[in-house]
Amino acid sequence: MKALVFDSSLQVVEMPIPVPESGEALIRVLAAGICRTDSEIKRGYMKYRGVLGHEFVGVVEKASNTYLVGKRVVGEINCVCGRCVYCKMEMSRHCVNRTVLGIQDRPGAFAEYTTLPETNLHLVPDGIHEDVAVFTEPLAAAFRIVEQLSILADDRIVVLGDGKLGQLVAQTLWLYSKNIVCVGRHRWKLDLLSRLGIATALNTDTLEGRADVVVEATGTPAGLQRALALVRPEGTVVLKTTCAEGFQMDAVGAVVNEVRILGSRCGPFRPALEALAMGTIETRPMVSECYPLTDALRAMTRAEAPDVMKIILHM
Amino acid sequence: MKALVFDSSLQVVEMPIPVPESGEALIRVLAAGICRTDSEIKRGYMKYRGVLGHEFVGVVEKASNTYLVGKRVVGEINCVCGRCVYCKMEMSRHCVNRTVLGIQDRPGAFAEYTTLPETNLHLVPDGIHEDVAVFTEPLAAAFRIVEQLSILADDRIVVLGDGKLGQLVAQTLWLYSKNIVCVGRHRWKLDLLSRLGIATALNTDTLEGRADVVVEATGTPAGLQRALALVRPEGTVVLKTTCAEGFQMDAVGAVVNEVRILGSRCGPFRPALEALAMGTIETRPMVSECYPLTDALRAMTRAEAPDVMKIILHM
Repeated sequence: MKALVFDSSLQVVEMPIPVPESGEALIRVLAAGICRTDSEIKRGYMKYRGVLGHEFVGVVEKASNTYLVGKRVVGEINCVCGRCVYCKMEMSRHCVNRTVLGIQDRPGAFAEYTTLPETNLHLVPDGIHEDVAVFTEPLAAAFRIVEQLSILADDRIVVLGDGKLGQLVAQTLWLYSKNIVCVGRHRWKLDLLSRLGIATALNTDTLEGRADVVVEATGTPAGLQRALALVRPEGTVVLKTTCAEGFQMDAVGAVVNEVRILGSRCGPFRPALEALAMGTIETRPMVSECYPLTDALRAMTRAEAPDVMKIILHM
Repeated sequence: MKALVFDSSLQVVEMPIPVPESGEALIRVLAAGICRTDSEIKRGYMKYRGVLGHEFVGVVEKASNTYLVGKRVVGEINCVCGRCVYCKMEMSRHCVNRTVLGIQDRPGAFAEYTTLPETNLHLVPDGIHEDVAVFTEPLAAAFRIVEQLSILADDRIVVLGDGKLGQLVAQTLWLYSKNIVCVGRHRWKLDLLSRLGIATALNTDTLEGRADVVVEATGTPAGLQRALALVRPEGTVVLKTTCAEGFQMDAVGAVVNEVRILGSRCGPFRPALEALAMGTIETRPMVSECYPLTDALRAMTRAEAPDVMKIILHM
């Protein structure tokens, strides 16, 4: 099969179809989305080497649970041991023995086939197009925020970043509070949210700087310090950016203002799939371009261009 | 009166006795403790210029509430407007119009006299020696942690830093969980805690790195990253250090592990005074040296030496 591999450089290579281990399913990938994390891995994030890709939809080809065979699925990316202290604490996304699809010790989904534990799979309702279903994983990361934090109906929320994750976060939190503004640098990206009735801003000049919650989804190391300037004392900054460089912050913004900074990563698939099935979250306008897997190098380059949002690979 | 003033350099100067404004008391200072924040101000923290000092005990000389006159008091350091959005949200320590004793727009207590709003004052029980009472303010900052965070009886706690604040935090949290270890660089400082039955360590080599709560009280910019290495996924880092330089942290430690970082500053005086009166917190072994106010320059220099802990000025 063909696969996009990162090993000090990116290449589309021919490699054997993976053999699922016990409890795992073999999945024929239909489509996969390129995430900023894929670009960060190229820059050294997680020191990962191997097949990239963790946002996918596919069809189960082989599984010990025969009910799954032939079904369209999306898959949770953390593959866990079920026995370690965090698995037993119901925090299995933090399993100490985990592998993570296309990110940590497990070949990813930018390939014709991939494997995942059957327990990681979720059936995709028929009504969800494959170019929508690939958003399940990043949308789950947006729903993670409301697992970690109670959003009240009149909470003032600022989302920093008009990229793919920022847009999903803004749409998701808008279900909980209408008092939300998404700040970004690209008018055309922000317009996608404006059309949905979500307030946007090209800079923070007009913002009060007293948000109850600021979600940092800029993808840049400077985002945390910008978030601290916008949140109220004792407010919450949700930190979504995983950039290779790390963050700098000052003591006044964090300590004197007694801000709560919450790291936030992967989230629950079920509410994400429900929202996509119901149409409460709109993803289609975010899809900029689609490429065949054979064109994956060009797709990866395009994914970093300022004039695109989501790039999808079709296998 | 004499006072220790910072204005690009430190000097003991002769200046007029301050005149209390409406609602304020004039306090004759008996003793005052030197805090690391005083040293940070010398390095540019908060850009403060004026009389230093915010940990004090004194006797009320003048007050509109005549009950206070002649009484021994300690004073909360945040002087607030009572009208702004945060005062109305019962978050008055974050008052947008606040002045802070010896730290922000208000002359401090390294002086023969100081002033504070009468509502900031707390009577000091007779049984508390003045060299103990000066610990009320930093001990309140330790009790702030249990206002912000529920500590369960079996929570694994690491306190980073064996300095004055680290010791007060370790003793305070030890009231809530016995599963606590204080990590520092000075055997003689850690021995003060060992004598109380609190576990200590000179480095983190033997620690599991899976603490539920890590309190960062090292006073150094590197402390946050060290704390992130010790806390478990979804655990809490309490950030107490206010250093002029700010902090650096990596994305894996904070975001991937979904750590909660809580800035923590001033705290409630009442439980601190109660603990000092009851003797549940021991401060006397922490007092290294006492100096008259006229020797304040030498005292400030000594306060930064590695062989001392608390330095107290007697007025």
